[in-house]
Amino acid sequence: MELLHLIDLIGTFVFAVSGVMAAAENKMDFFGASVIGFVTAVGGGTIRDLLIGSLPVGWMMNIQYLVLIFAAIICTVLFRKLFEKLYKALFLFDTIGIGLFTVLGVQKTLAIGLHPLVALMMGMVSAVFGGVVRDVLSGRVPLIFRKEIYATACLAGASVYVILWGINAPEMLAILLSMTTTISIRVVAVLKKWQLPQLS
Amino acid sequence: MELLHLIDLIGTFVFAVSGVMAAAENKMDFFGASVIGFVTAVGGGTIRDLLIGSLPVGWMMNIQYLVLIFAAIICTVLFRKLFEKLYKALFLFDTIGIGLFTVLGVQKTLAIGLHPLVALMMGMVSAVFGGVVRDVLSGRVPLIFRKEIYATACLAGASVYVILWGINAPEMLAILLSMTTTISIRVVAVLKKWQLPQLS
Amino acid sequence: MELLHLIDLIGTFVFAVSGVMAAAENKMDFFGASVIGFVTAVGGGTIRDLLIGSLPVGWMMNIQYLVLIFAAIICTVLFRKLFEKLYKALFLFDTIGIGLFTVLGVQKTLAIGLHPLVALMMGMVSAVFGGVVRDVLSGRVPLIFRKEIYATACLAGASVYVILWGINAPEMLAILLSMTTTISIRVVAVLKKWQLPQLS
Repeated sequence: MELLHLIDLIGTFVFAVSGVMAAAENKMDFFGASVIGFVTAVGGGTIRDLLIGSLPVGWMMNIQYLVLIFAAIICTVLFRKLFEKLYKALFLFDTIGIGLFTVLGVQKTLAIGLHPLVALMMGMVSAVFGGVVRDVLSGRVPLIFRKEIYATACLAGASVYVILWGINAPEMLAILLSMTTTISIRVVAVLKKWQLPQLS
Repeated sequence: MELLHLIDLIGTFVFAVSGVMAAAENKMDFFGASVIGFVTAVGGGTIRDLLIGSLPVGWMMNIQYLVLIFAAIICTVLFRKLFEKLYKALFLFDTIGIGLFTVLGVQKTLAIGLHPLVALMMGMVSAVFGGVVRDVLSGRVPLIFRKEIYATACLAGASVYVILWGINAPEMLAILLSMTTTISIRVVAVLKKWQLPQLS
Repeated sequence: MELLHLIDLIGTFVFAVSGVMAAAENKMDFFGASVIGFVTAVGGGTIRDLLIGSLPVGWMMNIQYLVLIFAAIICTVLFRKLFEKLYKALFLFDTIGIGLFTVLGVQKTLAIGLHPLVALMMGMVSAVFGGVVRDVLSGRVPLIFRKEIYATACLAGASVYVILWGINAPEMLAILLSMTTTISIRVVAVLKKWQLPQLS
């Protein structure tokens, strides 16, 4: 599980970076960029923890996350041009991070005894709603409501976990297959420019 | 109380429908429309449960709501033209739903021992803030901040309940009179195009 | 501590006034203005209480705040021209209020045993996030993300408190020095038109 914790930290870092970059495009100052970076990194897990009543919220209980996010904010402000060139690497870690955050959200919700369907939703919320809060605070209609099969990939990954959990499959297998599902759908969707049809 | 539960379910269904229809006007995709439908249906009760500390939030504890909302989302996507024609029937159920949601919000807040004035506010929040979250996520200034005597109707209905509760009136009478108050004000306001004066 | 409670009440009043005035500029009706006044006054503390799990949220437990905020809303609607002339006095009380809200946020977070860095953040959130919610509900990108050294002043004041708390300084001294720090930075920043550099 050491590896999973490492992925969790890297994912958090990359989420914070993406938030700061979005804020910079929006001409925010250093404080605004920090807030956006922060909520992008922890917003999804925070909403999940609030809804399921796991309080204080997770990132308050382990100071590692706070320090890591501040580091990400400062790195991004200093080395933004570099990070823009590393776009593809960031995308990769972002996608792996989403795969893991989905699993962690499902696990935490199941652990307090809520219904698997609720766990499935909370897995998706953990992975995706940081970006929703980022967009709302930036004055934009949330991107995922219009483009990219992003949340759908998380829902698919979460379903895989919930089903394997339901049949008592080994936890490590459920984690691996769930993450693989989320990551594959997301990567293929971006490569093929899949998107959900607009309602009209 | 069987009847009240039925009204609760129908109200939830109609709220979800109205959310999806708003999202479709906004050119969202299926995922975005589902989120908006969902938060419109449960957003008010969720904010109430968070503020009063009744966690996990209500809709997580009874899977009926989740299933019903998903059904509403799918029906709306499939039969949107039909639902647009049924506008008046939807308005009726929406209004009855608001009347009941106000009562349920007041009751839940009083039940955990908070002040009647707080209960009054939470009644209104339960009924109205799903629409506020819907509008914020859609990138609009919330409609109720500008138009329609909507929240005011809920506050009136909530006041009736709180007063009758204060004088130990029978619960069923308080529910009926509160709902009648909310529903009448709302219907008359729409028919007469009443609205609160703008500040200027 | 009588004096601190008085400052708390005055600060809450002034925050509510500023919310209603912002809403009036936005052409909201009486209800919209009341909601905005309310969230401006209690939004920061509410977000803090949600995140640290101190529920029901603080303003529900003491009806004084609710009554005071309603009074502020009604006064502002009736005497708005007057309040616009009193701009400088309002600014002064707003700034003193922010100084105190920061301290109260830090204290409450430390009291439940969370890390001093988290307390520092929650001090700032208590003072500043009411304004963020006000702006999001008004359909604006939050002002503090773009202008004024506002949150930064609160972070500085919160740091002073946390450091003095860490070395076991007398509480009253920590409160005074923390508030002085926040207030001085804010006043000087406005006088000198300091602002954080935009990212670009």
